[in-house]
Amino acid sequence: MKLKVACDLQYEALFPSTLILNVHAQHSAAQVILDERLAIEPRLRVETLTSTGSENRFIRVETGRSKSLRIRYRATIDCNYDLLSAAKLQNVPVAQIEGDALQYLFPSRYCQSDRLSRLAWDLFGKIKHPYERVMAIVDWIYDNVEYVRGSTTSQTSAFDTVTQRTGVCRDFAHLGIALCRALNIPARYFSGYAYQLEPPDMHACFECYIEHRWLVFDATRLAHLNALVRVGNGRDAADAAVASIFGSARCKAMKVSCELVKGERFKPLGDAQLRKRGVALESSIGA
Amino acid sequence: MKLKVACDLQYEALFPSTLILNVHAQHSAAQVILDERLAIEPRLRVETLTSTGSENRFIRVETGRSKSLRIRYRATIDCNYDLLSAAKLQNVPVAQIEGDALQYLFPSRYCQSDRLSRLAWDLFGKIKHPYERVMAIVDWIYDNVEYVRGSTTSQTSAFDTVTQRTGVCRDFAHLGIALCRALNIPARYFSGYAYQLEPPDMHACFECYIEHRWLVFDATRLAHLNALVRVGNGRDAADAAVASIFGSARCKAMKVSCELVKGERFKPLGDAQLRKRGVALESSIGA
Amino acid sequence: MKLKVACDLQYEALFPSTLILNVHAQHSAAQVILDERLAIEPRLRVETLTSTGSENRFIRVETGRSKSLRIRYRATIDCNYDLLSAAKLQNVPVAQIEGDALQYLFPSRYCQSDRLSRLAWDLFGKIKHPYERVMAIVDWIYDNVEYVRGSTTSQTSAFDTVTQRTGVCRDFAHLGIALCRALNIPARYFSGYAYQLEPPDMHACFECYIEHRWLVFDATRLAHLNALVRVGNGRDAADAAVASIFGSARCKAMKVSCELVKGERFKPLGDAQLRKRGVALESSIGA
Amino acid sequence: MKLKVACDLQYEALFPSTLILNVHAQHSAAQVILDERLAIEPRLRVETLTSTGSENRFIRVETGRSKSLRIRYRATIDCNYDLLSAAKLQNVPVAQIEGDALQYLFPSRYCQSDRLSRLAWDLFGKIKHPYERVMAIVDWIYDNVEYVRGSTTSQTSAFDTVTQRTGVCRDFAHLGIALCRALNIPARYFSGYAYQLEPPDMHACFECYIEHRWLVFDATRLAHLNALVRVGNGRDAADAAVASIFGSARCKAMKVSCELVKGERFKPLGDAQLRKRGVALESSIGA
Repeated sequence: MKLKVACDLQYEALFPSTLILNVHAQHSAAQVILDERLAIEPRLRVETLTSTGSENRFIRVETGRSKSLRIRYRATIDCNYDLLSAAKLQNVPVAQIEGDALQYLFPSRYCQSDRLSRLAWDLFGKIKHPYERVMAIVDWIYDNVEYVRGSTTSQTSAFDTVTQRTGVCRDFAHLGIALCRALNIPARYFSGYAYQLEPPDMHACFECYIEHRWLVFDATRLAHLNALVRVGNGRDAADAAVASIFGSARCKAMKVSCELVKGERFKPLGDAQLRKRGVALESSIGA
Repeated sequence: MKLKVACDLQYEALFPSTLILNVHAQHSAAQVILDERLAIEPRLRVETLTSTGSENRFIRVETGRSKSLRIRYRATIDCNYDLLSAAKLQNVPVAQIEGDALQYLFPSRYCQSDRLSRLAWDLFGKIKHPYERVMAIVDWIYDNVEYVRGSTTSQTSAFDTVTQRTGVCRDFAHLGIALCRALNIPARYFSGYAYQLEPPDMHACFECYIEHRWLVFDATRLAHLNALVRVGNGRDAADAAVASIFGSARCKAMKVSCELVKGERFKPLGDAQLRKRGVALESSIGA
Repeated sequence: MKLKVACDLQYEALFPSTLILNVHAQHSAAQVILDERLAIEPRLRVETLTSTGSENRFIRVETGRSKSLRIRYRATIDCNYDLLSAAKLQNVPVAQIEGDALQYLFPSRYCQSDRLSRLAWDLFGKIKHPYERVMAIVDWIYDNVEYVRGSTTSQTSAFDTVTQRTGVCRDFAHLGIALCRALNIPARYFSGYAYQLEPPDMHACFECYIEHRWLVFDATRLAHLNALVRVGNGRDAADAAVASIFGSARCKAMKVSCELVKGERFKPLGDAQLRKRGVALESSIGA
Repeated sequence: MKLKVACDLQYEALFPSTLILNVHAQHSAAQVILDERLAIEPRLRVETLTSTGSENRFIRVETGRSKSLRIRYRATIDCNYDLLSAAKLQNVPVAQIEGDALQYLFPSRYCQSDRLSRLAWDLFGKIKHPYERVMAIVDWIYDNVEYVRGSTTSQTSAFDTVTQRTGVCRDFAHLGIALCRALNIPARYFSGYAYQLEPPDMHACFECYIEHRWLVFDATRLAHLNALVRVGNGRDAADAAVASIFGSARCKAMKVSCELVKGERFKPLGDAQLRKRGVALESSIGA
């Protein structure tokens, strides 16, 4: 299925600053980039940054003397995914987890799994099947945390959310990640474009490492899991911010879109459909 | 200079558990491992784990039915380091930092650089030279935080320490890292064996990325910077724990040693000597 | 019923310091003090401190040049209490709460009821009867928080405990208070001597203001509610510390006891018995 | 000097709710209320609440079936104050503090003096004179914390502000209080009307108990200290909120004013003038 995504960002800089942006779709077998364009006004030096062990495609922009700045990214992506029988997914004990997944077991800035350990075992310890365990976590978050725009700040962490019980997609993802890690399931942050998300914005959800695959979960239930375009992965939002600013630049406007390419047919697979069909969705094949 | 290091760990497990240990010296041009031995009683399955983008050599031990467990690591290491003229170290703006160092600019579990930003700029913003800036941070921590055994827990973070002003080597390192990141200097955690550390223990300090090199700093001033054997690097202590336990095992005893190989000559280079000579120490050459 | 209580404290002071101690039993119709003795070695100036609106009997001791200090308090108390039919307890809406109870609706150092609001309403909002609501809170804490000696510090607050799920009597009390306040039930801290507490120590529990009376609750279920000798009340432990030290004094030993006067008969009324009999216990009659 | 103050509040209630408001000027020798009027639309049951040991004049309003609500308070106050020679103010050791001031030594919701102890002693421990010590605290806050509207939330506490270094008047007051308590100086929150405050709003500052008097301090330096009309005192903002809402009511508009009665002459005494004249201001005489 082909999706057209776009991100239009406007910044204002007080003095020469550096921006590290994370808006590019990742490359992978599951995400073939058919075409892609980045436009920056005025014309500024742009550099691509990659980091060993990460698929994120950061770009670095130097504002130089420019006071105002506009960055537009557009791409057409052919998205692919695998469906796996949920019932057949096997537990992979910590004793068999690959080294590369190891870091996703450790606590991070917004996912203090070390402090959520007893709670996680009390609530979900009895569920043995790993996929069911994560689904129970997703249900619990959906049932107990209310999606309230503006209720949290960039400092809000999973430890806050588990008690305060309000948040936005980023907070839902952080709590999901923290609870999974507390239960020894590697979990990572996922940010990306989401088809039919209302209102359109960059979305955040999370992935768990089950049976040597990264399966995608969304505790907000707002996104079609088969219509996500992956932009950033990381331990948490600290690793996948749309923009990290060094110097003094402020975002004046941000517009995100994600549409179906004309003629494409789409059959939504959200949380409800996956459950009904008894399948799990792997969107990082080849990554 | 050759050092003999050893780590002797005893664990008690209530039921079959998995331990991921980080006690092995890293391999690199700066750290040639002359000999090395790992002994586990009883004989258990042990596996080496490496992770893309990290030099840490984790081992994974499954306790199986064993209730008590002893792990002994011994190695002889030829340590090497470079000394750089502090005065000549150039600032590397964020605009030129390599992708692999990028993650060390972001906040992490114990180093909430995002919350320390104003404080860091207020205290150290006027110092332009990057090495001097870090040295000023090291001085500030040394002068304002008291080393008090048992004053902190495994949950204590840089945000706590900057106000509570007590801690152990781990806390000193976290605060140094957080302040550097807040000032856009990539910084990472360093754990390892330290010659003549009193009392002998695994030591923690930190490294900053200045002029495309990782230079080592120790705000406790307890270690000779030229007699450290690097074991773990990471964003903070969450990435370089001596032991991560999955299941139920408790450490019953831990003994660490680090001695000079007979006949070796040693001339200490601590914080004071480096300043006197106007040099910075790079211990990760070839890493 | 008559109880003999004692508290034996030993301090060491580095330099002249002031201690404010809260070990004296409160006076009230419910707690008649038959005899009482305070002995301090060496003989030091001691002063009684009372505070408008509080029944706590603080004493202030100045160490002067004394390096070591021993304070012994002994008293015989005739304890009394009222039993009320739980079923008949009426809800007192905030609209009818007395001014003096008002402060016990506000958040305090260790009871951040403002941050527990949604959680409290989600868990207990459906229970309308005020006494049943508090009993449900007591049950929830007892079922979800594990009593683990040494698992918390003097900084641990209700916001931590609700997620970390371990603590001691002080933490159980703080969480009970915070949840009640979040539900608009005035709640206060209670510290005192407790008969047959194992091991003997100063105990902490809490009181709720229901139908214009202060009823006592203990989420640890460790104490007989009809064999408590009230020492301190307050917003939380910050108001009822056994000792507040100004200067530099360290507690070297603390011994607490609470025994039945010979010949007295005692029939325990703990959480279980109260439920069985359908009664609530008011221990602050006349206070 | 006579001041006319007014507060106009509009609320919207979803269902019958109770509001406890704290907008009335306190009565005292220093604050003679010449006239006063409270108007509520629609006409609702209003009740005055007082609390032992507090001078705050709370009112309680029940919305009943009213969906929208307007509360207007107007008063003319004759303000008085004493000026004391700062140099002559004597230290009152903890050993001589009255029982009623005791509670203002303890940590509270937003003023975690227990966690700021080392910092406070490091920064201000050498200053022996109590008034100079508090003035040094006021200076330090003014110099190190930036007044930034909207930079903090109702959860922000002194422990946050001391590191994050931004805030509004409430945060400045909390930090001042916490630092004073950490140094064994009783300190309390002060909320009230402030003449010529820009923009007009309820102001917050703090008072310290020095030589058996409550002296007023304002680390924001925004208010004339001799033109404040005291509304609320308490441990921190939790005790002196303009409105505590039980049920579901939202503030739709709030307008505050404080003007000089015609013909009155006013000579400002702010932080700068007090220092110049070497005097301290006591505004709670007779309270």
